[in-house]
Amino acid sequence: MIEPFRIALAGLGHVGGGVAQILLTRGAELSRRAGRELQLAAVCARDRHKPRRADVSSIPWIDDAVALANADADLVVEVIGGEGEPALSLIRAALENRKAVVTANKALLATHGAQLAMLAEERGVPLRFEAAAAGGIPIVKGLRQSLITYGIDGIHGILNGTCNYILTQMEATGRAFAEVLAEAQARGYAEADPEMDVGGMDSAHKLALLSALAFGVPPDVRAVRVEGIRHISRADIAFAKEFNYRIKLLGIARQTPHGLDQRVQPALVRLGTPLADVGFVFNAVVANAGAAGPFTFEGRGAGEEPTTSAVISDIVDIARGERGPAFGWPAKELRAIPPAPPDAHVSAYYLRFDVRDLPGVLAEISTYLAREDVSIESMIQRGRNPGEPVAIVMVTHECSETAVSRALTAIGISDKILAPPCMIPIENG
Amino acid sequence: MIEPFRIALAGLGHVGGGVAQILLTRGAELSRRAGRELQLAAVCARDRHKPRRADVSSIPWIDDAVALANADADLVVEVIGGEGEPALSLIRAALENRKAVVTANKALLATHGAQLAMLAEERGVPLRFEAAAAGGIPIVKGLRQSLITYGIDGIHGILNGTCNYILTQMEATGRAFAEVLAEAQARGYAEADPEMDVGGMDSAHKLALLSALAFGVPPDVRAVRVEGIRHISRADIAFAKEFNYRIKLLGIARQTPHGLDQRVQPALVRLGTPLADVGFVFNAVVANAGAAGPFTFEGRGAGEEPTTSAVISDIVDIARGERGPAFGWPAKELRAIPPAPPDAHVSAYYLRFDVRDLPGVLAEISTYLAREDVSIESMIQRGRNPGEPVAIVMVTHECSETAVSRALTAIGISDKILAPPCMIPIENG
Repeated sequence: MIEPFRIALAGLGHVGGGVAQILLTRGAELSRRAGRELQLAAVCARDRHKPRRADVSSIPWIDDAVALANADADLVVEVIGGEGEPALSLIRAALENRKAVVTANKALLATHGAQLAMLAEERGVPLRFEAAAAGGIPIVKGLRQSLITYGIDGIHGILNGTCNYILTQMEATGRAFAEVLAEAQARGYAEADPEMDVGGMDSAHKLALLSALAFGVPPDVRAVRVEGIRHISRADIAFAKEFNYRIKLLGIARQTPHGLDQRVQPALVRLGTPLADVGFVFNAVVANAGAAGPFTFEGRGAGEEPTTSAVISDIVDIARGERGPAFGWPAKELRAIPPAPPDAHVSAYYLRFDVRDLPGVLAEISTYLAREDVSIESMIQRGRNPGEPVAIVMVTHECSETAVSRALTAIGISDKILAPPCMIPIENG
Repeated sequence: MIEPFRIALAGLGHVGGGVAQILLTRGAELSRRAGRELQLAAVCARDRHKPRRADVSSIPWIDDAVALANADADLVVEVIGGEGEPALSLIRAALENRKAVVTANKALLATHGAQLAMLAEERGVPLRFEAAAAGGIPIVKGLRQSLITYGIDGIHGILNGTCNYILTQMEATGRAFAEVLAEAQARGYAEADPEMDVGGMDSAHKLALLSALAFGVPPDVRAVRVEGIRHISRADIAFAKEFNYRIKLLGIARQTPHGLDQRVQPALVRLGTPLADVGFVFNAVVANAGAAGPFTFEGRGAGEEPTTSAVISDIVDIARGERGPAFGWPAKELRAIPPAPPDAHVSAYYLRFDVRDLPGVLAEISTYLAREDVSIESMIQRGRNPGEPVAIVMVTHECSETAVSRALTAIGISDKILAPPCMIPIENG
């Protein structure tokens, strides 16, 4: 029998606790799969005396997270979280000490990933992060190992369960964003400070990692244009449905002739396409794998068990001897691709104008759109009572984002328009 | 630089030709991913002089497939196909010679898989078959490496693109099975002899492999109950839709308290659930991964490029040093689980009766169903003209398969019933 594979675990929160629990209760079965005994060799968390579901009292305890890198272990699991310290120093020190590293830390990798991958390769140890993008969905392995033959043209997906829950509930209940957010917080589907989720940054971190895997670029969250879902109204959700679409917060990364297009933004997806029926906290990613076609991966993207599942799968892979570069390409060959400029972005758009019910308002809107060569595919005008505000909603043909923005700026200053026009792209992916 | 990784390729049909083409044209990029040069070292096919898209004229040619096992190579790719010879002898000889093997041969593995996995492990070389189940969809790796943490309760999926194409077209066009099959043959979506596909055996081969990965059983196609789609009528498809369902040919494998339930059969899936919108030649698999929840994988399950993509991904994994058992568990630990008896199978059912339009017919049907404790959730009775046959269609509550079968046998002999009643289970995942 080969020597046991020793695991040092930093962080005993939901995910760390789940990992400890699984190693302690299902270790025998997983060891058979791994071909060697998986052994929890050391643990570390902020508070040693906090009651925990997993009984780690017999496992050597190390108080200082960074010191865990010196534990007698083959692999360090970092599930402390947080973009900075002590997670970053721990991962660095572990790699320096030639220990394999498994982390769920998307924020950290979306900034320091390329550098850490380089260090891992210099030291000849694997760095793995299946749990960092879309939780339990094996999209990291999918892009790293499976969909490599024809290259990837683009990926797009629902990467944040909180936003997807909110949008699904807004549609199901007809309630407004703020009300549904409050309910999501009460039910534990949204954080007390929801900004990372509803502002789109959490999706952006994940997208940066998926882009690196798909296109061989260094992960760089700063290269992602980010828009959240706070401005999505129930009216937009209802109108979208009339046009046969559903609004989802998407992460989109696509290789274009003008550069790499990386965006997080709400978009309309057509009913009947794979992402439209992905509801509640579920995540899903569509990868267009060249001639092999599109592949869709769907599952629970967050929560203790899906994340634990991803961390454990990385541990078993490494115990089995899996090597190879963190992002699928040698780290020193990762090359940034210039970002695609917004005026290169062509899409159909959903537009909503809240207008005064006055003669000539539609003529005014259509004139400004026509001036920018934005042509309209279909339109709904819905009046309420005479004299009250009216919604004019349109779906355009494909046109440049810049052209639509220019038209909307011009239209927005009209005194017939009651609120800034709303503009949401249609994603046909 | 490490030595090149030498690949011997048996079979130059659609898939073999695709693999050769990719190695010759995208070899440099894939070699960077693999960390060593991928080299096509030898090829073998039936006819050396047949014109081919991939120019293999500079590659050493071996006439005898089994002799390819002696080629100067690290890995043998078997894409000859066929359950028996020469594929089986080639794979055996290659493993005996301590060469890694990648195969797309589901029929062969669904019968000889456990024995070949044992041989591979004895010789210390990997045996991989991502292309053998659901083509380009990385479900083999998903079950082998990713969804292992909480165990798998069940898998179900659309595993045959030909059947899915036919069912999708029957719904879209309202045409009958035979007519749509003929069109599918003309368009190259169905074989001249379609029996393997429409009879369900192709799905059964794939299901046997997925079961092995999910449950640690030796793959055994004989343990799969198989039913095809020839008896599905346009009426069934239309009625299913009225009840908010779509008919799909599913492969289902599930661990039950009574044993392992492995079936290929048409089933009703509810609109809005992940499998319902999987149309045309696409495949999809749902894996219920215990506490981590359900995961769905969707993509093209057959055809040159998706299959090539899967074969290449296995080659790169092995070149990178991936090891570990073929079915995710050591082959000597694969243990058969007794099959669940049909009377243990509980499900809701769709039932269709073609009846004479006579008084008392509904009473007769309902009496026999009630006698077997089969209770009805909803019903449609659709008459045409007085005196003409009438369809009575029902959806039952959950009940035992045996009870429904017994009731249908009793009902079927009534002279008011014009044709054997139709019974299709409802699959709720």
